[in-house]
This record gives sequence, C-alpha cells and structure tokens, in this order.
Amino acid sequence: MKLHKFNSADQRRYALEKKLGLKLEKIKSALIEDESKLHCENLIGATILPLGVAGPLKLVSLNSGQKRLCFVPLATTEGALVASVNRGCKAISLSGGVKVFIEKVGTTRGPIFYVKNLAEAVSFKKWLTQNQSKIRSALESSSNHLKFLKFDYQIMLPYFYLRLYFDTDQAMGMNMVTIATEKLAELIEKELDIRCVSVSGNFCIDKKPAYLNFLSGRGLKVWAEIEISSAVLKQVLKTSADRIFSVWLSKNIGGSLISGSLGYNAHFANIVSAFFAAVGQDLAHTVEGSLGSTSAEIKGENLYFSIYQPAVMLGVLGGGTKLQIKQEAIKVTGAKTSQELAEVLAGAVLAGELSLLASLAEGSLAKAHKKLGR
Amino acid sequence: MKLHKFNSADQRRYALEKKLGLKLEKIKSALIEDESKLHCENLIGATILPLGVAGPLKLVSLNSGQKRLCFVPLATTEGALVASVNRGCKAISLSGGVKVFIEKVGTTRGPIFYVKNLAEAVSFKKWLTQNQSKIRSALESSSNHLKFLKFDYQIMLPYFYLRLYFDTDQAMGMNMVTIATEKLAELIEKELDIRCVSVSGNFCIDKKPAYLNFLSGRGLKVWAEIEISSAVLKQVLKTSADRIFSVWLSKNIGGSLISGSLGYNAHFANIVSAFFAAVGQDLAHTVEGSLGSTSAEIKGENLYFSIYQPAVMLGVLGGGTKLQIKQEAIKVTGAKTSQELAEVLAGAVLAGELSLLASLAEGSLAKAHKKLGR
Amino acid sequence: MKLHKFNSADQRRYALEKKLGLKLEKIKSALIEDESKLHCENLIGATILPLGVAGPLKLVSLNSGQKRLCFVPLATTEGALVASVNRGCKAISLSGGVKVFIEKVGTTRGPIFYVKNLAEAVSFKKWLTQNQSKIRSALESSSNHLKFLKFDYQIMLPYFYLRLYFDTDQAMGMNMVTIATEKLAELIEKELDIRCVSVSGNFCIDKKPAYLNFLSGRGLKVWAEIEISSAVLKQVLKTSADRIFSVWLSKNIGGSLISGSLGYNAHFANIVSAFFAAVGQDLAHTVEGSLGSTSAEIKGENLYFSIYQPAVMLGVLGGGTKLQIKQEAIKVTGAKTSQELAEVLAGAVLAGELSLLASLAEGSLAKAHKKLGR
Amino acid sequence: MKLHKFNSADQRRYALEKKLGLKLEKIKSALIEDESKLHCENLIGATILPLGVAGPLKLVSLNSGQKRLCFVPLATTEGALVASVNRGCKAISLSGGVKVFIEKVGTTRGPIFYVKNLAEAVSFKKWLTQNQSKIRSALESSSNHLKFLKFDYQIMLPYFYLRLYFDTDQAMGMNMVTIATEKLAELIEKELDIRCVSVSGNFCIDKKPAYLNFLSGRGLKVWAEIEISSAVLKQVLKTSADRIFSVWLSKNIGGSLISGSLGYNAHFANIVSAFFAAVGQDLAHTVEGSLGSTSAEIKGENLYFSIYQPAVMLGVLGGGTKLQIKQEAIKVTGAKTSQELAEVLAGAVLAGELSLLASLAEGSLAKAHKKLGR
Repeated sequence: MKLHKFNSADQRRYALEKKLGLKLEKIKSALIEDESKLHCENLIGATILPLGVAGPLKLVSLNSGQKRLCFVPLATTEGALVASVNRGCKAISLSGGVKVFIEKVGTTRGPIFYVKNLAEAVSFKKWLTQNQSKIRSALESSSNHLKFLKFDYQIMLPYFYLRLYFDTDQAMGMNMVTIATEKLAELIEKELDIRCVSVSGNFCIDKKPAYLNFLSGRGLKVWAEIEISSAVLKQVLKTSADRIFSVWLSKNIGGSLISGSLGYNAHFANIVSAFFAAVGQDLAHTVEGSLGSTSAEIKGENLYFSIYQPAVMLGVLGGGTKLQIKQEAIKVTGAKTSQELAEVLAGAVLAGELSLLASLAEGSLAKAHKKLGR
Repeated sequence: MKLHKFNSADQRRYALEKKLGLKLEKIKSALIEDESKLHCENLIGATILPLGVAGPLKLVSLNSGQKRLCFVPLATTEGALVASVNRGCKAISLSGGVKVFIEKVGTTRGPIFYVKNLAEAVSFKKWLTQNQSKIRSALESSSNHLKFLKFDYQIMLPYFYLRLYFDTDQAMGMNMVTIATEKLAELIEKELDIRCVSVSGNFCIDKKPAYLNFLSGRGLKVWAEIEISSAVLKQVLKTSADRIFSVWLSKNIGGSLISGSLGYNAHFANIVSAFFAAVGQDLAHTVEGSLGSTSAEIKGENLYFSIYQPAVMLGVLGGGTKLQIKQEAIKVTGAKTSQELAEVLAGAVLAGELSLLASLAEGSLAKAHKKLGR
Repeated sequence: MKLHKFNSADQRRYALEKKLGLKLEKIKSALIEDESKLHCENLIGATILPLGVAGPLKLVSLNSGQKRLCFVPLATTEGALVASVNRGCKAISLSGGVKVFIEKVGTTRGPIFYVKNLAEAVSFKKWLTQNQSKIRSALESSSNHLKFLKFDYQIMLPYFYLRLYFDTDQAMGMNMVTIATEKLAELIEKELDIRCVSVSGNFCIDKKPAYLNFLSGRGLKVWAEIEISSAVLKQVLKTSADRIFSVWLSKNIGGSLISGSLGYNAHFANIVSAFFAAVGQDLAHTVEGSLGSTSAEIKGENLYFSIYQPAVMLGVLGGGTKLQIKQEAIKVTGAKTSQELAEVLAGAVLAGELSLLASLAEGSLAKAHKKLGR
Repeated sequence: MKLHKFNSADQRRYALEKKLGLKLEKIKSALIEDESKLHCENLIGATILPLGVAGPLKLVSLNSGQKRLCFVPLATTEGALVASVNRGCKAISLSGGVKVFIEKVGTTRGPIFYVKNLAEAVSFKKWLTQNQSKIRSALESSSNHLKFLKFDYQIMLPYFYLRLYFDTDQAMGMNMVTIATEKLAELIEKELDIRCVSVSGNFCIDKKPAYLNFLSGRGLKVWAEIEISSAVLKQVLKTSADRIFSVWLSKNIGGSLISGSLGYNAHFANIVSAFFAAVGQDLAHTVEGSLGSTSAEIKGENLYFSIYQPAVMLGVLGGGTKLQIKQEAIKVTGAKTSQELAEVLAGAVLAGELSLLASLAEGSLAKAHKKLGR
C-alpha cells in the first residue's frame, strides 16, 4: 500500500483503517492544524501530548539585566514531572529568582572530505586557514539569516573532518546550515579537487550523545543558579542543604561518573523533552539537552545550586514553531527570542533538578509517582 | 497564580489566558482525551505532533520465527523524516525483510547506600551475595508484574552503588521498579543499619547518555540486519554498496569516535523520538535510544547492513500508552507485546539509517530538506 | 644494518656505535643482568632509572586481616614524586595504617569471531552458554597455572566479541591467556566453522584507556582508605580537611569530568608507573593503572580519604620479575604474592594522592618541584 | 626508619638492607650515574630495563621536507616487542619510508579559580579576554624558554577552569608551566580577589585518560602514514591488505568502541612506554601516549595505513634527559629537537601497530610470544 499516493491525511488514514481493519478516531480528531502547513510526509492525522504549566518562574537574565516572571509549558505523559518543576519554581521565586546566562556557540555542521594522503591533509588545512573570506562567502551565500562563526578540524586519514559553527539568528537552523555546508563543499571540490564524502560527518555532532558537545558546546551554552535559604528548603522542599548536597554528590556526580555518563544531572532530559515538545522544537535534540552538569554547595545552612547545559538547540522560528499550537505555548513563556526561550528552559531545568534531588533526599520519589503517576 | 488550585484544565487555561492576555485556542482544541485519565499536573490542554506513517515494513523475528508486515507511525515536525524511513522500508521489503532479534536486559534502578568504611562495604557485598532470596522477596513484594533478575554493584567509598535489573513484563516499568527498590532499601536499613542515600543513584542510569547502558544494556537490546542487492541499492536508494560503506565508515564510525560519541550511528534519535511520541513512550528515553551502533559490509556488489540498540526502554502497558490515541498508533504497528513493539522500532531504525546514509552518499540530503522541510 | 644477525648485545652495540659514530658507555655499563635471560630482541645493553624508597607504610589487609609495615620502591626521574609518597606514608602511619581490600577480577583476553549473520550470532551465543565445560577444557589445556573464570560477550555484526576472564595465579599472565584463547579459537573454528578474526580484539581491553576496564575491572580491583586527624593534617600535610576536600571536589572530580576523563584522580599514573618500573611489571599497564577514582569526606575536623583502582595488572612471577634486580625490589616491599604486591601499590597510591592534594591545597606544588625537580 | 636522614644512596641502601635483612646488589650496581644529578628522593640505587634497538627506520618529515634513517631504542622486559617494531621498520623501509607530520599544541596546565557566583564568572571571563597582554606578561615572567599560546575555559560553578597552553621549546616543560601558572594565579588573586583553588585542576589534563586530550591535543599532535605493496605485505608481514584491514576494522575500531576506549589502536602504549623509558621521558605520560587512532584503507592490493597520536608529551631537555644514559639513547635516534624525537616515535608507533595487526591477521601472535617472551 503506497500511502504517499493519496492527496490528503483523510484519504491516507481511511486507506490505512481499511487495510488494517482499525478505526483511528483520535488520530483524526487531533489534526487541528492546517495540514498543508505541516512538514510530515504520509500524514494520517496527529497525536497529542497532555500540556501542563509550571510557574510562575522568576527569572533574572545576566545577559540583558532584566527580571521577569514567566510560565513553563511542559508536554508530557509522565506523572509528577510538572508538579516537580512547579515546586522548584516556587522555591526559586521565594529565593529572589533564578539567574541565567546564555552564551551563543552556534549551530554546527561537520562535513567530511577525503584526502589522498597526509601531505594533502596538511595543505588542505593551510588552504582553510588562508581562505577565510572565500569560505565565508560560500557559506553565507544561501541565506541572509546565517552568519559563519568559525571552524574546528580533525585529521584522521584518509578523512578530514570540519566542524562549522553558524549563528542562525532566531532559528535552530539545522537545514539552513546543511545547505550552506553544501555550498562550501562545492567550492572545495571545484577549487581543490578534494571530494566531500558526506555533508554531515558526525563531527557536527547532531543528536548523538558525545563528549564533543559537552566540551565545545552546541547551539547555546546555558547556566543558571540560585541560593536557597534553609527556611525555603524546609518549607517548600521538605529537606535541608546538607541532604541535597549529599544526594547531589553521590548521585549526580558519583553515580554518573561510575556509569560513564556525559550527563552529571538527575533528569535534564525530562524537562528538556517536555519543554521541546510543548514549544515546537526537534525532540531528538533532547539528546544534546541531556548533557550537562549540576553543582551544589553548602553555604552556612543555605544551599547554592546551579546547572550547566552546554548544548541547547532551539529556536523561535522555523521547524515545529510554525504550528499555531506551538506559537501559543511560546507565548505562554513570554519569550520573543531564542535566547529568551533558552532562559526559560534553563530556569525550568534548575527547578526540576532541585525538586527531584529534594524528593530523593527526603525519600518521597516513589510516593510522588505512586500518587501522581498511576 | 496557583494553577493547581483549579479543578479543570479549562479553568486553569482560562486563568492563564486572562493573566497573560492570550488566547490558547489550539491548546484547548487538542485536549481530545478524558482529562481525568491524563497524568500531567496543572493541565491546561494538550499539544499536537503531526503523525505520518512509514511502511509497509517486512519484519522477520528471530525470536518467534514469524514474518509479518507492519506500519510505522512517526510523530514529528521534521520534514523528510517519514519519507526517509519510508524509502528504507521499501528497500527492506524488496530485499526479503529485515531480521530482528530482541534480548531482554531488564529495567534498572540503582539505589545508593552510605557505608561507613571499606570493611562495611565488604561485608555489605557479602550480605547481598548470601541473601538473594530475601532480596528477591522484598523486591517482588510490591507488584505481581515484576520479576527481579540480577544485580551489579560498584563501591566508591563512602558510597555503595547497586544496579537492580527487573523484568517488568509488558510495561516499561520505571515507577514499578522505583517502588520495589524502596522495599529493598527498607529491608537493608532495618537489617543492616545501612542508610539508603537515594533510591535512584544514576547507576541505573536513566535518561542520561552513559557508556554503562551501551555496554550492559537497559530495557531491551535490539539487533536488526538486512542484505540489499545492488539492483535495489541503485533503484531505490540511488547509490551503491561501496558509497554507503564509505559514508558509514567515515561518518558513523570515524566522525563518532573523533567526537567522543556513544552513538555510532547517523540519526537513531530521530526515529526513536518520533516513534516514542507516536506510541506513548517516555520521550526522555530517546537519550538511551540514541545509543548504539551500525555496521556495513560490502558483499560482492551487495550491502550487508545492521543496527544495534543496547538500551531500548518501552512498553505496551502503563505510562503514555493509556491514552486512546497512543493505543490507536500501537494498533497501527500490529504489536501486541513490548517485544513486538521493539521489533517494529528496530526495523524502522534500520530503515531510517540506511536511507539517510544513502542520501548522504548520493549528496541529496540538503535537497530533500529543501523540498520537504521548509 | 641487521642488528638481529649478531649474537650478543656487545656485538650489536659495537656495530651500532660504529655505524652512528657514537659511544654508548652507559648503556653498556647498565647491562648488569645475564643477557641470555632477558626477553628483549636486538639487545644492545640496558637503561637505568633512579630508584628511591618511600615508607615505611603501615598496611592493614582486609583480605587477610594482617597488619604489616612495608617499603615502597619507586623508579623515576621525576623529582618530588618519592618525597610526596613518603610524606603520605608518614601521615598514614600516624593514622593507624591504610586499610586495603583486593578483589580478583582476572586477566582478560578478547578474541573476535566473524559471524555470517544475526542468526549465526544468536546460535553461537547459545552454544557458548551450553558448552561451558568444553570451553573450560580448551582454555585450561595449555597451562596448569590458569583457571578460566567467566566470559562476557558483545555482538556488533558481523563480529562477535568475547571477553574471557582468567585467574592466572601469581603471574600477570597476558601471554598465558593469549595461548589459552588460541586453543578456544581452534575449538570454535573446528566445531562451528566460525572463524577467529583476531585472538585479541580490544574487548580485552589491554593497555588502552577504556571505560570497560573502569566498569568491569581487569586484573585486580583495589580499594584503600584512611581517616586522618586534624592534627596530622596540620603537622604532616600542612593543611586541613576542608581544603583537601575542596581541591578534591574541584580538581579530581570537577576537573576530570569536564575533561571527559576516566581517571578521577590527581596522579595515579605517577605512582603506578614508578612502582611498575621498580618491581618488574609491564610499563604499558600504567594505562589501566591510571583509571580510578578517589574520594574525600569531612568528618568533623578529620578527613576520610579513599582510592579505588579497578584495573591493576601485576604479578610476582614471569615477565620482568625474572630479573634479579626486580626481585630485589619486590623483596623490599615484603610481598610474597600478587595480592600482597597490589596491597603495597594501593597504599602507595593513596599516600601519593593525599600528599599531592595537600600540596595543591596549601599552594606548594610549584615550590616542591622547584626545589626537588630541577 | 627515616631514609631521608642519610646523605647518600649507599647509606640509605645499607640501612634498608640491614633493616630488612636483604642484599640489594643489583640495585647497587645499577647506580652508574652521578647520584648528585639524579632527581629522586630517598635514592637507594637504580633499576634497569633491557634496551633493544629497532630499525633502521626510514623517515620523511613533512615539516622539514627531509628524509633520514634512524634507529629506535626501546627499553622493555616484554619479549617480542622490539622484534615487532623491527619488522614494521623493515616493511616501512621497503615501502619508501614513513611520512610524518607534527603539530605543536603546547604543554598545558589548568588552574581552578573559585568564583562566588555566575555574575563573577561572567566578569572573570570578560577580564581574561580583555587582558591578554597582562596575562602573557605574568605567565612568561618566570622563564625565557616559555611562550604562552592561548587559553580555553570552562565554567562549572562555583569553579572556573582555565587551560593554559604553552610552547616550552625543547623541554616537555610541566614544571616550567606550573611555575608560570602560579604567577598568573598571583596576578588574578591580587587584581580580582578571585582565589586559585588549585594550580593544577585536571583540565590540564595530565596523565589521566581523557577525551579532552584526544580532541584538543596536548604537547604534540603526531601523524604518520605509509602505503605498503602487496609484495611487501606478503614477504615481510606474511599477510595481505584485506586481512589487515579486517583486523583493523574489527579490533582497533569495533573492539575499541564497544569497550568505551579512547585508544583506537592495538598497542600504542607498548611502544610509547618503551621509547619513553629509553630516551628519558616521564613514564606516566604513556597514558596520553596511548590515546589515538589508526586507519587502514585497501588501495587495489596495497595497504594504506596511518596512525594519529593527539597527545605526545616529550622533550630533549630537562627531566630524565639529563641522565647520560638517556642522552646516549637520544643520540641513537639522531634527533636534535623535540619535534625530531616525536617523528621517530611516530614512525616506531606506526611500525609496531602494523606489525602487530599483521601478526593477528596471520594468527601468529601467541606463537611469537611463546618463542620470544618466555
């Protein structure tokens, strides 16, 4: 059965229902956006995810210097997640707000070139260094929204790996940078007769769990911090600074290192995936989003707590953000730019980490799941 | 504003709309399931993801020996993904079907215990070895659907890390194993006076990118393979065995290793996240799902191609699968059990990998995205 | 010039001297062992390493329950190393002795087999599980000193990786296990017609920095611990518990994780390499020896400190231990068995870590090197 | 017994002999260098390692353009190692010589600073960027042989990690850069009131197995390549291009990745440690030296083979190279500079890898060890 021969989701779904002897009523009802605007082949309808909201979350941006209150939309089927982030938001608001800082690393694409030998690799490297403006012209020729930032390289013969970094403005921009990279590959093939084996060579590295993204970053690097008083720890989080510290050290750090993890955190992936699903990001970028570390420090009886995410890939233009339902969720956050959206995520991730570590410290994780999750 | 004080999604959304001066029409319309059955706190509605279908996919199960045809529902906003998997399915069907094999590793949970010193660690280890039936009783006391399989341990003083493996039957089962682990923690605290610092200690390791899951597996280990003739390579995939081999070696292997990746693949995460979103799995498990390797071998002019995913966490009961819309999608796959669902995923992942590597080999990736994605 | 054509080190060295116009007087003088007993081809003499001794080190074995005093021979050209270990030994002795525990994991070898497809891999796995005694017979046929312990496996098609664990008694035993593995390969090739691609397939994994050895161990797993009073911290180590804790947390843990390290320590490799050189071990096993973690905990004003080395490869028989000069150094340690030798190493490693962290905490590292190293 | 109270190695050894009831004759005889020039505390004598020579090795430097013949001194107690490198050298010489290329990355040191909060981290980063010349002055004030190259940084609150890169001329230079780093720490503490927690913070990262060194390099990056004809493969290496390729792919690549290795090679560590011991380098730097990858490519019936070592730490001045016996060995290599010494190492490493893979391919590894090693 060739679903792509049909002209509409209704026809395809109908054909599939007939073929399989099923009724796909909910999948039909969920198609509440104009299908001509959806980028999904063989469309038969849509699926849903429940949408909850945590907050208000008090944010202080160290980039802009501005404070704001925002709400955090989270799409999830996992009970207790929204409640957990919500509790963290409350602790944060009572502590003056979470401070966040964003550094743009850039969206990356990593083409592979085949070099005949070491001598060609060495001269290719030299050419790359000496022809920056020509390279920039090629890379920026395909879009006005894209700015080439820099490149890294690695030589593992007979392959030469490039990693190109781009500022993609308000879009996450993977498609944009792929097209730009093709332009550079054409230039190199023409000028140097060095063949591009693959426009994407995993030195990007996109949607795979890799130390490279931990070290060098990808998209945006995001930090957030809070200091919480013993009173708030006790009243809101039902625990103390030293208990959270102890869980943090033994679990987020010790447990992660003994497991060979690149994520020194408790559950970044939960918050990242639920937020990404809500605001129209690529769900597979949850992989990079789960990279990162947390830190805890006892200051008297207070707790200093911070999170670091080195590879946040998101945008407010393009991709899933074109859906009206995703625009509604972005409006709930109040974010106008990618950076502001990342600030909300950073605050939510800190809130979620703090709350889960507190639950573990007081021994209530299973109870929460029993009550909310089942 | 305290959203959790309201009694319904409508009331909460209305309050939020008023507070923010917004209209959340689509979020309202998407709430097509009975909200009393959704496990999401502070619910204000739902969000949607477009749903496409790839296939038919011809599967041969090496566990059951059975052959079947199935369809692959994928929920995504990324253009070209469904088309790519679909093309892979076509190549597979023309090649006699993808062979898949599943090995159950078990759902894991890793509590941390605080040991006073090395001597206590040594005697705790001995106790664990000598009291297996008592341990089993404690662990299996909370559910009839759960079977304790085995444990691993690590000692990093003053912490003792356990990793408990469970057969959770047809459910993914994280909540179930958390509750079971609390029972064991109670037993240990009572009998040995050794304190459980955290019921989850990242030696689990859940939703973080970690070599432990690559090596030891988590949930299900999944393999899939296909041999594709040069004719199918040429007609369907527009390329040849040696070109795919070359992209595989330089990108999936070389590019991954130089990036410190635990994913030796091109885009497992794309297929895993889209499939998980469609059939009601936990999206954050995309992190484990992006672990894994691919292999390619030139056999004459044919291509032998295989994939390996060591940590597939999924189920057909519990969690998001309780939504009717997810049940509809599961029915589209034809899977009755977790294992059958994993077989469909394995076939789809192989299809998607093969198709993307072929696109890269023939240089059409950017073109596909330009046409389908924007 | 074909050095291997000559019959003695003198002839070879003489030929080389003539060819290069050099005099190699020291290299000649250093050849103080009977060359017929040295396993080094193209021998032209020997080289030396200065030998210092740290200690006495007070050891408490948790395996045997025995206490003993021992000395630690270290061969090194790096100033400050012996002094540093020596200072640690003093702090240990004043604190009642370092407690050590050894767990035998076994020497490993990992052959690779070529399987035609997934079905063959599955049936090979079944064969391995069902023919344990036949496998044992093959493996143990070549030596009386070798006992087969267990195997792990991994399937990455078309390759099947085995990891065989052996008890090699008092020898490190790599050669022994290679020979044994060949016997198994012969059996498998004969019985199953499955070809052994390589008798060593890096799933061993020998002399490469790998998380597998961190997680599963290799050779011996070694733990050591000490609790040091504030008085000893102040008088011997010139610092305090909280300062050492702070350096430990930021450097050994934080600095290591941000660097993608498998060694969560300050300088295991220094002590391991100097000890291995002194007592006749394979220097390349320094790689595994540099794996491992340290931990610190503040107990009131005391410091609890421990080290863990998961992959210590050593022996008191075979290899370099056949040299008389290595036997002398082993006698200095008082060790009669591999386990006792590992106990000395564990104590020395703890001593060295403690002392270096204390130096860093008080800011005296560069000073020590300026005074002792140049 | 306080060995450091004695004034000479003889007195210390005598005291130790008396104390332990031993005679350390060989350790005494091995002390053939002037002990006043040895940097080893509590000296009691020396130990030896047998010294063999492989070669001649034909080298072509892509840096200088020069060709030369050299010999490779290797200090080892492991039978078959020198023979193996020697065989590789023969294959190389018959193939026109190994081409090598060296890139200076620089010796690194990574101090940690304590920042009170995110805002201080951000302003510290800005200060570092805006005060490069002041930083350079501080760093270069302590030595004329040292040139500051660049810095990287990481923020994991409350810690700020720097990685300083230096050109240390002809010395490996760890002590030099530690002293320089102290000068910078003083400047920062004085100007910014930001405390240096540790002058070495493992973001260096020295002597630990870490992906950072694989990715960013340390000391020197080294590449080497050769193309070997089928005739030489057959006559010298007793095998063929496709068999070596197959072992390389399944072992060096597949076996390494499934083991979570940072060393995609067969036995770099063997050659690095034996060479370092011979020519007076720090043995613990074998850890970085074992990082790296190999590659193989079938070209018709020829084999293209290359190696890459990203983190070679060595020098021809300072440290162990002050011993006369090490100078003799350096003269055997013909190297006048660190770069030339690294070129010899690179060639030897390629030779050793090639020869071992050939042995594994033809199934003669165990046989060689049986004959030469025992």
